[in-house]
Amino acid sequence: MRTGKVFSVALLSLLAALLTLSALRVRAAQMAAPYAASRRAIEQILREQQLAWNRGDIEKFVEGYWRSPELTFSGSSGVQRGWDAVLARYRRSYPDRAAMGQLDFADLEFRFLAPDAALVLGRWHLSRHPDNDAGGVFSLVLQKFPEGWRIIHDHTSAVAAAPKK
Amino acid sequence: MRTGKVFSVALLSLLAALLTLSALRVRAAQMAAPYAASRRAIEQILREQQLAWNRGDIEKFVEGYWRSPELTFSGSSGVQRGWDAVLARYRRSYPDRAAMGQLDFADLEFRFLAPDAALVLGRWHLSRHPDNDAGGVFSLVLQKFPEGWRIIHDHTSAVAAAPKK
Repeated sequence: MRTGKVFSVALLSLLAALLTLSALRVRAAQMAAPYAASRRAIEQILREQQLAWNRGDIEKFVEGYWRSPELTFSGSSGVQRGWDAVLARYRRSYPDRAAMGQLDFADLEFRFLAPDAALVLGRWHLSRHPDNDAGGVFSLVLQKFPEGWRIIHDHTSAVAAAPKK
Repeated sequence: MRTGKVFSVALLSLLAALLTLSALRVRAAQMAAPYAASRRAIEQILREQQLAWNRGDIEKFVEGYWRSPELTFSGSSGVQRGWDAVLARYRRSYPDRAAMGQLDFADLEFRFLAPDAALVLGRWHLSRHPDNDAGGVFSLVLQKFPEGWRIIHDHTSAVAAAPKK
């Protein structure tokens, strides 16, 4: 019967499509798996940075950065070059606990460029008193070294907050 | 003769060292070669952007960016998302030839993160009249697509110019 044949072909096509989809899902999971571990490792680095900052420990905070003269940090003061310069900039810009405030990272977005290289976008916010909050956006490039993931480049901008209502 | 033997050993060691060095140089050249071509390709993209800008052609300028809703552009207004938003931002910020001025890119620095991914730092400067120059630093992340290298993320900051003497 013609209708039966058409029905069988449709059913087989549906089955083939389902099998293909399922194979694609397995492949996507396999591809995502190594990045999932790397993502967790990077999230951990940033969480440790945040905790260190909020205890007032800038030395520990900068451990998230690549300890190299090739580390770069770009922003409204131009390009700082080298781990020592980055540490010096943080110390100069945030001389005490009041200036440091409470740091919060949010809206992290991960893009893996290679198994050992990632671009991470996010927002930073400093809660400070009185009414002296600051915040903005950052772009981090990280690479995986034998000692773990480290920030090799940071570009940070302040973004004017929307006026409070 | 003992001195002769020592001399031969020293000579052989020197030869071995020279051969190793020469092998390392060949290997370094092989490793640099693919990046040299990629670097030239990226320099070409940026040169075309600069030429397009300086003819007042923003549509051509934005061809250097990845034509995707996933393109991101970070700066003091936060994160713009998608090629259309990036084009709209350029049109809004630079409504006419006077606002666009003459663009110059300088001090380009390349770091290849993978054969198909690069971080490029540099400085931008807009010469405008009268005394309305602007400039700063940028961090570009580029990826190589079948159609060529494209900027997938741009983080740009204005840097206040040093006062003229």
